[in-house]
Amino acid sequence: MTTESPLLLVDRTNDVLTLTLNRPDQFNALSEELLGELQDALDAAAQDEALRCVVLAAAGRAFCAGHDLKQMRATPDQHYYQRLFAQCGRVMQSIVNLPVPVIAKVHGTATAAGCQLVASCDLAVASDSAKFAVSGINVGLFCSTPAVALTRNVPAKKAFEMLVTGQFISAADAVGHGLVNHAVAADQLDAAVNSLVDAICSKSPVAVRTGKAMYHRQRGMNLSDAYDFAGQVMAENMMADDVSEGIDAFMQKRTPVWKGR
Amino acid sequence: MTTESPLLLVDRTNDVLTLTLNRPDQFNALSEELLGELQDALDAAAQDEALRCVVLAAAGRAFCAGHDLKQMRATPDQHYYQRLFAQCGRVMQSIVNLPVPVIAKVHGTATAAGCQLVASCDLAVASDSAKFAVSGINVGLFCSTPAVALTRNVPAKKAFEMLVTGQFISAADAVGHGLVNHAVAADQLDAAVNSLVDAICSKSPVAVRTGKAMYHRQRGMNLSDAYDFAGQVMAENMMADDVSEGIDAFMQKRTPVWKGR
Amino acid sequence: MTTESPLLLVDRTNDVLTLTLNRPDQFNALSEELLGELQDALDAAAQDEALRCVVLAAAGRAFCAGHDLKQMRATPDQHYYQRLFAQCGRVMQSIVNLPVPVIAKVHGTATAAGCQLVASCDLAVASDSAKFAVSGINVGLFCSTPAVALTRNVPAKKAFEMLVTGQFISAADAVGHGLVNHAVAADQLDAAVNSLVDAICSKSPVAVRTGKAMYHRQRGMNLSDAYDFAGQVMAENMMADDVSEGIDAFMQKRTPVWKGR
Repeated sequence: MTTESPLLLVDRTNDVLTLTLNRPDQFNALSEELLGELQDALDAAAQDEALRCVVLAAAGRAFCAGHDLKQMRATPDQHYYQRLFAQCGRVMQSIVNLPVPVIAKVHGTATAAGCQLVASCDLAVASDSAKFAVSGINVGLFCSTPAVALTRNVPAKKAFEMLVTGQFISAADAVGHGLVNHAVAADQLDAAVNSLVDAICSKSPVAVRTGKAMYHRQRGMNLSDAYDFAGQVMAENMMADDVSEGIDAFMQKRTPVWKGR
Repeated sequence: MTTESPLLLVDRTNDVLTLTLNRPDQFNALSEELLGELQDALDAAAQDEALRCVVLAAAGRAFCAGHDLKQMRATPDQHYYQRLFAQCGRVMQSIVNLPVPVIAKVHGTATAAGCQLVASCDLAVASDSAKFAVSGINVGLFCSTPAVALTRNVPAKKAFEMLVTGQFISAADAVGHGLVNHAVAADQLDAAVNSLVDAICSKSPVAVRTGKAMYHRQRGMNLSDAYDFAGQVMAENMMADDVSEGIDAFMQKRTPVWKGR
Repeated sequence: MTTESPLLLVDRTNDVLTLTLNRPDQFNALSEELLGELQDALDAAAQDEALRCVVLAAAGRAFCAGHDLKQMRATPDQHYYQRLFAQCGRVMQSIVNLPVPVIAKVHGTATAAGCQLVASCDLAVASDSAKFAVSGINVGLFCSTPAVALTRNVPAKKAFEMLVTGQFISAADAVGHGLVNHAVAADQLDAAVNSLVDAICSKSPVAVRTGKAMYHRQRGMNLSDAYDFAGQVMAENMMADDVSEGIDAFMQKRTPVWKGR
């Protein structure tokens, strides 16, 4: 069940969807067309009830260079730009709103909206040679939409420094600042991502889906509302067959067999 | 003035309350009964006007294993679960709302609602052999209510990784991610906790109580509202006898003698 | 174009404004008069359309010791204190709301409202011998208004520990906790600050000003609102002449020449 397209490679194997940005010669710049294919793939994934998680990867040397500057420059119209950034923001929010976890697999440089993609994923693993920047400022364009994702991952002063200087940070610093979960040697990147994928796939699907949705929704609530909401979600989760099975298996010191409901 | 009970040890010495979870054979799992005793102790502490701070400790090898899975499994009823999680959420919020600081003293493993207890305290000190996980996901139950406390301490991607993988992090990583303040050698844990207790007890009681309440309340406000609120609180605090004494003592290079008003 | 006053040194060179707290014998304590001069300087800076960035520095051994305790103690009146803290909060918010970035240059000790000044700046660089504390608690006065700025930079438990113990943290820890961007050897402080100033001055003025305002405003919004807002701001930013120039220069591999519009 592998579909190939010029812009986005879509591979769905063992209930794991791997989306690979595939404009290597353009450093996987997010053209309208690539954003469109990403949106379609995420929309399909949102309807895919057997899906367990998504890996977002990229082909070629870079991870993603952000928006396609050449394409943007060709249409100097504010309404066009507004539609373009709205399209991009919808893709980023579709990652957050997707029912299953999305893991960024960052093998190379991630800049501007490429860095935003990393920030928008639930989890991220980077090669230790990867670099990260929100570098729009270097061409006169403050990375405003990337800032939305970045500031929800990275402490205030460090995020502002990245945005206003456009300078690269290393993968190690990206870990330290909370932008990625782990940085590993390039030849360990597959293994590190697979280890997260395997961990997620070994859990109850209903628990993972329940949890991701709850996790993002409670973040903006005050403490009391968040507890009310989380308590209701967790009480519902308790009624799943998987929890009976999970607790029984735990007590019997055996591996649970999930029914996914 | 020491009261002992099977489930919770309550010791109040020198205006410091030490609550010790005491179900060592059940890894201090938070049964309804233990949650009830914790709630009672916190309610009493909230009325104890001479109290300076609370230490939350635990007996046996583990700090706290979270909810009592056996008890939960025995009553498969969604309303029961909702009441249980509401009860637990009330305990956690009572820690946040308690007029005096609460310090978690984490000598061993803290999992699920046990990790939530640590996250809910104002301060936490851990033995460097302690481990932390929100591991409900391993039995099919996403740690939704623990996520509320965790995400208010730990950066987004790291919190999500803990919640979705259920994996343990070390005490050193817990310090790095903001879940605990300090990790020390096991035989230094008493000293490290006492050092925080002594620091708090050396301050003006009115300042500490004023400050803790203000600290938590301003966090959800926008900058302008937070400054208005904090400015009013601080102007009131300035009128306390303890501030006159504190500033005089500071200028006279002597130790202040607090009146507690 | 250098103005000198007893309390605040104001130097505006090459479109960079350097404000130097100049009460060295009082460790640059923020008297009403110094706060007034800071407010005036920030108000003027807000109207200065050619300005690129502000450096906030201090003379003498300390960076800033916070409020002037002697002055505060002399007027024991709650309304006076309320006005004083409102005045101070206005200064801090004027830093956040200033159209250009403000960099704290912290060569020495920053305590209480002095630490708040550092936290309120967009960027901060410290000498590695600098120390940071919110130490009002030591004189019976919880640092409530400093807490507002601190908690928007530093993780919850670490911020609370600083506030309730009043203890100093090192410059290295201040970096680790997000309170400052970099700590460098004392004799490298000028160079490190200048490096940030130069980075900012090399960017398009319209992008920097657009970005700073957007950055702070989107932080309190929910994800969807933040994306709508950021997308609009970025579409407007795209229409600036500087972006056409920036993208053209990038594609032609030359240095852009900003028009500032």
